[in-house]
Amino acid sequence: MPQGVPTTVPDDGLTTRQRRRRPLLVVHTGVNKGKSTAAFGLALRQWTAGNSVAVFQFVKSAKWRVGEETALKALGELHEQTGQGGPVEWHKMGEGWSWSRKPGSDEDHAEAAREGWAEIRRRLEGGAHDFYVLDEFTYPLKWGWIDVDEVVAVMNDRPGFQHVVITGRDAPPALVEAADLVTEMTKIKHPMDAGQKGQKGIEW
Amino acid sequence: MPQGVPTTVPDDGLTTRQRRRRPLLVVHTGVNKGKSTAAFGLALRQWTAGNSVAVFQFVKSAKWRVGEETALKALGELHEQTGQGGPVEWHKMGEGWSWSRKPGSDEDHAEAAREGWAEIRRRLEGGAHDFYVLDEFTYPLKWGWIDVDEVVAVMNDRPGFQHVVITGRDAPPALVEAADLVTEMTKIKHPMDAGQKGQKGIEW
Repeated sequence: MPQGVPTTVPDDGLTTRQRRRRPLLVVHTGVNKGKSTAAFGLALRQWTAGNSVAVFQFVKSAKWRVGEETALKALGELHEQTGQGGPVEWHKMGEGWSWSRKPGSDEDHAEAAREGWAEIRRRLEGGAHDFYVLDEFTYPLKWGWIDVDEVVAVMNDRPGFQHVVITGRDAPPALVEAADLVTEMTKIKHPMDAGQKGQKGIEW
Repeated sequence: MPQGVPTTVPDDGLTTRQRRRRPLLVVHTGVNKGKSTAAFGLALRQWTAGNSVAVFQFVKSAKWRVGEETALKALGELHEQTGQGGPVEWHKMGEGWSWSRKPGSDEDHAEAAREGWAEIRRRLEGGAHDFYVLDEFTYPLKWGWIDVDEVVAVMNDRPGFQHVVITGRDAPPALVEAADLVTEMTKIKHPMDAGQKGQKGIEW
């Protein structure tokens, strides 16, 4: 059953109420499934709480579309029509970032990734959203396209109350160090090891 | 980036197409956050695919309500109104199972858990849904309220094409053995270790 009891009470001078509301930097890493899926599950909770949700997918292909995209966008439309829940934005690198005039390109993923991060940085500094998913964002960090120290500095200095979830394998140590909550999705067993192919509704 | 390449090709006589569609038994276990959240994230994918989703929460309290419940029910209503996505059912032990005349009781959780499992068994045997979430189901197994060998037998014999996701700490070995996909959510870092309390939109 879910437990909400902290194991220690810090000597930080904060009240319980203040400690209940703290913007979190969350990292989902490890080799197994569930990193992005759990991030989008958290987005559901945020939607229900009426918070502004923004997803930034650092995927190469415009064709890559997960089921969560359709479902979360449907919830965003429901919010626009009825006021229920919160607003949802979904941005994808592979099809060209929605705010950019540049089309998606197979040529310079590094430049596209940097452009995505520059926009996220602007939004974080401006307090644009309540909840950010930076999906598959560990890869441009790992490949050196985006400077991890800059990312950590922006996260540490972000104003107001903005949660950020970063997903992907091989999260850099500096990011893990800066995060409040880090979960590693560890593989105990995976059907692809038994030759199973990816399938709709499970892998996408 | 998401990979769909199996590491081995089994000698099972199946075509790639057949191997693409296989009902999975999935277990999300381990001590950290993300077990239920990732299961509800998968439910989003299933909804988008137009599949019938049924969630059974083995939680004690009727008051326990996660944000995913509101959001997934909203998607279920959207399906009823517009035909988009698939149908969604959400059943919770603590408030008395919806199909049952018995109210939620603080007195006999074991009996309530067994009643929930009996209904799930009937539905699995009848092929009622495409996707089941048995949330926090490892606990009644761990406490001996429900026989794990019976659960494994029902899973192994379930007809048609029904995915099942079971969440909770300490998944029994026999269940892990029977599962196709097992992910352990491993704690690298948790804010409650630093005295952070649970908060809306993150823990529920």
